[in-house]
Amino acid sequence: MSDGELLASQVTEAIRSVVGAGTKALHEPTFSGNEWEYLKECLDSTFVSSVGIFVDRFEHDLAQYTGAKYAVATVNGTAALHIALKLAGVIQNDEVLIPALTFVATANAVTYCNAIPHFVDSEENTLGIDVAKLHRYLFDHTKIVDGQCVNTLTGAIIRAVVPMHAFGHPVDMDVLKDLASEFKLVVVEDAAESLGSTYKGKHTGTLGKLGVLSFNGNKTITTGGGGAILTNNPELARQAKHLTTTAKLPHAWEYRHDEVGYNYRMPNINAALGCAQLEQLPQLLESKRQLFSRYQVAFNKVDGVHLMSEPNGCSSNYWLQTIILNADKSRYRDAVLEATNKAGLMTRPSWVLMNELAQLSNMPGMDLSGARSLNERVINIPSSANLGQDAQ
Amino acid sequence: MSDGELLASQVTEAIRSVVGAGTKALHEPTFSGNEWEYLKECLDSTFVSSVGIFVDRFEHDLAQYTGAKYAVATVNGTAALHIALKLAGVIQNDEVLIPALTFVATANAVTYCNAIPHFVDSEENTLGIDVAKLHRYLFDHTKIVDGQCVNTLTGAIIRAVVPMHAFGHPVDMDVLKDLASEFKLVVVEDAAESLGSTYKGKHTGTLGKLGVLSFNGNKTITTGGGGAILTNNPELARQAKHLTTTAKLPHAWEYRHDEVGYNYRMPNINAALGCAQLEQLPQLLESKRQLFSRYQVAFNKVDGVHLMSEPNGCSSNYWLQTIILNADKSRYRDAVLEATNKAGLMTRPSWVLMNELAQLSNMPGMDLSGARSLNERVINIPSSANLGQDAQ
Repeated sequence: MSDGELLASQVTEAIRSVVGAGTKALHEPTFSGNEWEYLKECLDSTFVSSVGIFVDRFEHDLAQYTGAKYAVATVNGTAALHIALKLAGVIQNDEVLIPALTFVATANAVTYCNAIPHFVDSEENTLGIDVAKLHRYLFDHTKIVDGQCVNTLTGAIIRAVVPMHAFGHPVDMDVLKDLASEFKLVVVEDAAESLGSTYKGKHTGTLGKLGVLSFNGNKTITTGGGGAILTNNPELARQAKHLTTTAKLPHAWEYRHDEVGYNYRMPNINAALGCAQLEQLPQLLESKRQLFSRYQVAFNKVDGVHLMSEPNGCSSNYWLQTIILNADKSRYRDAVLEATNKAGLMTRPSWVLMNELAQLSNMPGMDLSGARSLNERVINIPSSANLGQDAQ
Repeated sequence: MSDGELLASQVTEAIRSVVGAGTKALHEPTFSGNEWEYLKECLDSTFVSSVGIFVDRFEHDLAQYTGAKYAVATVNGTAALHIALKLAGVIQNDEVLIPALTFVATANAVTYCNAIPHFVDSEENTLGIDVAKLHRYLFDHTKIVDGQCVNTLTGAIIRAVVPMHAFGHPVDMDVLKDLASEFKLVVVEDAAESLGSTYKGKHTGTLGKLGVLSFNGNKTITTGGGGAILTNNPELARQAKHLTTTAKLPHAWEYRHDEVGYNYRMPNINAALGCAQLEQLPQLLESKRQLFSRYQVAFNKVDGVHLMSEPNGCSSNYWLQTIILNADKSRYRDAVLEATNKAGLMTRPSWVLMNELAQLSNMPGMDLSGARSLNERVINIPSSANLGQDAQ
C-alpha cells in the first residue's frame, strides 16, 4: 500500500468509525420540529408569497437570535450580499477585498455591483482572511485620499472588505476591524456559513456595518433557498427592505418605484420553514459540536491530518467539519477524496480559488500562498447534525 | 350625486353583484389539489433546496403544458427575464425595447444587464406594444448597420424587443415578429402574467427566441416566488440552466465556475408547490373565464366603461380582469379606485408608466400617448379564480 493509499484508507476508516454504516452526505438538513405545521399554516393562510406573518416572524426571530437590531430576509445569501455591498456604498469600478478562498457567491456579488473583486490571502488558524498579511499589503499598496483608500496600482477606490467565516469558523474580527478603520474600509461580513458562530460572544454577521446569512439546503438550517441581511442601523435596514422589494413606495394601489430595485424578498412559505428550523438551531449546533468531538477522537489516531477546531475566543457552528492535511501530505488530497467518495462518504475540497476561475483571473490580488496551501490540504467531511446525535 | 360618484357607485355595484359579499382581494391563489401531499413528500425527502425531483418535474410539466421544448425554473420572473435577456445577447449599453406600460421588473431586468430600456407605446386592443406605431418609429429613427439595428439618435444598438402580455392578453405576435425580423431584433417574451394564454393556438412565451413566466403569489398559479425561462433552443436551455445555477461545472467534488453566474434556481420546495398548482391550471383558467363572463354581464349595464376581453385569435388567461374607462371618464379613475377599495373590493390602476419613474426618466422612448391614455383609464378588479366558481 502506498503512502497515499494508506492515508486515504485511514481517513476513510476514521470517518466511518464516527458516522456508522451507509452512504453519508456532506450535509443534509434535519426536519424534526414544526416544519410541517408551519407550512400547513402558511398554505391555509394562502399567503405563500411576498407578504405574510412568517417573513416578519423569521426576521424577528433572526434578529433576536443573532443580537442584530434588524434582519431582512432575502431569497438567498447571494442576493443578501449583493444588497449589503450596495448599502455599504460599493459602486461601479470600486474594488472590494474578498478572500480568494471562498464560495463563488462572494465574488459574484461584487461583480453584480459592477465592482472589482480584489483577492486577499487566508490563514490557517481561522481559514479566513490573513489580517496581518493584508495589513502589510495595504500599507505598501494603498494611500488614503480624501478619507478613501486608493489602490496605488489601479487608482481605484477600495471601498469594502468582506471577511467570510469559512465553514463556520470566525475570522479574527477585532484585528480586521482595526485594519478596516485604519484603511477606511467598510466591513461587510459574509456569514453565509456561520449562523450560530460567535466571536467573543457576538454573533458573526453583527460585527461589521452589515452582515449576511444563508439558508441554502446545505446550510445548518434551511429555508429551501434563502438568506438575510443583518445590521444594527435602522436606515440601512429600511433601505435593505426597500431594495429587496422592488423599491416600491407604500400606497394602497399605486405602483411607483423610486430607484432600481430587486425582486429579492424571501417568500412566506420559505420563511415558514425557516421559523421551524430556527427553533431547532440550538439542538442542531449541539449535535454538530458532538460530531466534532467524535471526529476529534477518531482523527487523533491518524498521522498527517488534523481536524479544524474553533479559533480562540470563538464558538464555531461546525457547519462543515474540516480536516487539514499536513503540508507534506497535500499530494494525497485527491486520493483521499477519491477513496472517501468511493466508500459512500461524501467529501470535498475547498473551492477552486477565485483567482483561478477564468472569469476572475485578471482581477487584482495580493500574494495568495496561504490560500493556495489551504486549498491543497483542506477536505470537508460528512457534517450533518444527525450524525452527531446519540442515536447514531 | 356627481358624475364621478355615480360611476364609482355603478362600478362598485357591478363588481359586488358578481363577487358577492365580503372583502375581496385583487388576486389570491387557490390551493385545492396536491399541494399538501407534494410539500410533505418534499420535506420527507430532505431535498428542499437546489436539487430534487420536483424541480425536474416542474420543468418537465411546464414544457409539456406550454409546448416549449425546454423550461428552466428560476427563483422568480425577474431573474428569468434577466437571464433571458443575457441569452438574447443583450450587453452593456445596448438598448432594449419594452412597453412603458408594464410592471417595473421588465425595466429592471434590462438595467441588470447594464443595458438601456427604450420605451414603446401600447395600444387599446391588446394593452401591449403598439406594433404599427413602433414600426413607423423604428423606420424613422434607426438604421441597419452590419445586420444590427442602430438608434440613429443615440448610436446604441437596439438588441431586443420585449412584448409583455399585459394582464394575460397576448400581444399581436405575428406582426411583432415581422417587425423584429425586419429590424433585426431578438424577441424575448415577458409572459410573466400570461401562463395559460395562447396566441393562434401557441402558448405565450414560446413565440419568441426566449420567453419567461412568473409564479409569484399574485399570479394564476404560484410557487411562493418563482419563474421560468422557456425556449425551443437546446443550447439556450443549457446555458439558462448553467447561468441560473452559479455556472458551476459538473464534478463529483470540485467547485469550479466558468463564468459569472447567478443563484437563480428555484428551490425544490417551491417547485413542489408548483407541480401541484400546475395540475389545477385548466380548472383555474376555466373559473377565471367564468368570472369574466359574469363581469361582462354586470358591466354591460354600466355606461362609460368596458371590460377588457381577449384579442382576436387569442385565448387569454384573464389573470387580472380589467375595466377600461371611456376617454371622457378618465378623470373619475381615482374616484372609482377610492370607492371600490373603500367597499372592500380591491382594485388598482395599471402601473405608473416606466418613463415617469425618476430613475428611468432619462431613458429613450417614442411618443407614449397610447400608454398614457390607457394608464389613465385602466382599472384591475378582483380576479381570483375562486370568485368564478359555481359555489360563489
